[in-house]
Amino acid sequence: MSSRRLRLLIEYDGTDFQGWQRQDNGPSVQATIEDALSTMVGQETRIRGAGRTDAGVHALGQVAHFDTEAHNIPLHGFRRGLNSVLPRTIAIREVVEAAPDFDARFSARGKLYRYQIWNEETRSPRLDRFVWHDRRPLDVARMNEGARLLVGRHDFAAFRAADCERKTTVRTVTRLEVTREGSLVTLEIEADAFLKNMVRIITGTLVEVGRGRRAVESIPALLQSGDRTQGGITAPPQGLTLVRVDY
Amino acid sequence: MSSRRLRLLIEYDGTDFQGWQRQDNGPSVQATIEDALSTMVGQETRIRGAGRTDAGVHALGQVAHFDTEAHNIPLHGFRRGLNSVLPRTIAIREVVEAAPDFDARFSARGKLYRYQIWNEETRSPRLDRFVWHDRRPLDVARMNEGARLLVGRHDFAAFRAADCERKTTVRTVTRLEVTREGSLVTLEIEADAFLKNMVRIITGTLVEVGRGRRAVESIPALLQSGDRTQGGITAPPQGLTLVRVDY
Repeated sequence: MSSRRLRLLIEYDGTDFQGWQRQDNGPSVQATIEDALSTMVGQETRIRGAGRTDAGVHALGQVAHFDTEAHNIPLHGFRRGLNSVLPRTIAIREVVEAAPDFDARFSARGKLYRYQIWNEETRSPRLDRFVWHDRRPLDVARMNEGARLLVGRHDFAAFRAADCERKTTVRTVTRLEVTREGSLVTLEIEADAFLKNMVRIITGTLVEVGRGRRAVESIPALLQSGDRTQGGITAPPQGLTLVRVDY
Repeated sequence: MSSRRLRLLIEYDGTDFQGWQRQDNGPSVQATIEDALSTMVGQETRIRGAGRTDAGVHALGQVAHFDTEAHNIPLHGFRRGLNSVLPRTIAIREVVEAAPDFDARFSARGKLYRYQIWNEETRSPRLDRFVWHDRRPLDVARMNEGARLLVGRHDFAAFRAADCERKTTVRTVTRLEVTREGSLVTLEIEADAFLKNMVRIITGTLVEVGRGRRAVESIPALLQSGDRTQGGITAPPQGLTLVRVDY
């Protein structure tokens, strides 16, 4: 019997997970969904996600695909069935049919990530799970000057985790903007693809610019250097959200 | 030595608390702050809050006062010291000197509460701690027609918990509005004072109006009746937030 390929749109609060990817040292979003799905269809089922978000990182629009021979379950049956057994920190927003050659990871043409910072003296219990609380005042205009220098096609080797295994480090950032609404500073970045920790290192670097601790003019040399040790800190995971994957 | 009276502005995520008020069956916001404060000043200290929020209800702007003989601690010392020991779900936003006759509860002239509903098929992990997830479509225009009939000075006896002990049940609602932004429905209500569960019962009643299950025209008769059993359900606590107390 032929199998069908389905595509999931997934939202999660990553606070209590060891990231997207299945692993041994704690619950992952992938394993939690796979276990629910396998029970539902009565067969071991693996899903593949568009982005392997780190421990503590959230998603509003993660995408994943899987193959199943369960032809008797309608699409809304998958959605409702999964949502009824998944923890409240994960929700399946959509289940749709996908082309046989659709691959959540390799078919992605781009992604949008958002990083949020609560920038005032006192933390916000309301937003705390989804922001980095940074007390030092940030100059958003300066951060945007730095951000503009990162837009375009560049070698982002200086903006990736030391253990990142990608061979090519050239990526195209199509948008990078920082805005402020009261105490909430939001960085949005769109690119064709991202290196490991790239958004968090870009955020950490622009935060240093925003604090006046790093010159805007140093950004081109930093890109040029390809040297991670010259980049900014890796901003903590809880401020980061995978907003959208484009195909 | 004379004591000084201080006023606190407090934000909290009420998910993990048995409400504002100190009690035996679990952690309360009041007891958590009192314990931190007592340790800090080296003397048993009691605080009095403006509103006794129920278990699971949140606050962006709860107000409380207390008296202390600790004249050596500056105002920012109280704020920072308390925030450094309180759980991340509670934050002291402000500490200011209060007049000797200021009383967080009895000096209040009015309060603003917000109730939020996530109104679509699938729950939102992002907002889940702060909303009531109600799948049935709500007609916000109809809810506002009902809301308008509750604005003004009325006897709200039909909109209070059975065990509410207040003697007078006449309250003045100065504003009651329902708005929608995408799937998020927000009810805001301002009044001089509130009866026990009043906002949650008003919300539950207007939700029934919004679902088309209760006629807008039935609201005046419901007010007139003073009969809680004719009112709507009590909306669950997690959608409710005490936004502001006015003095």
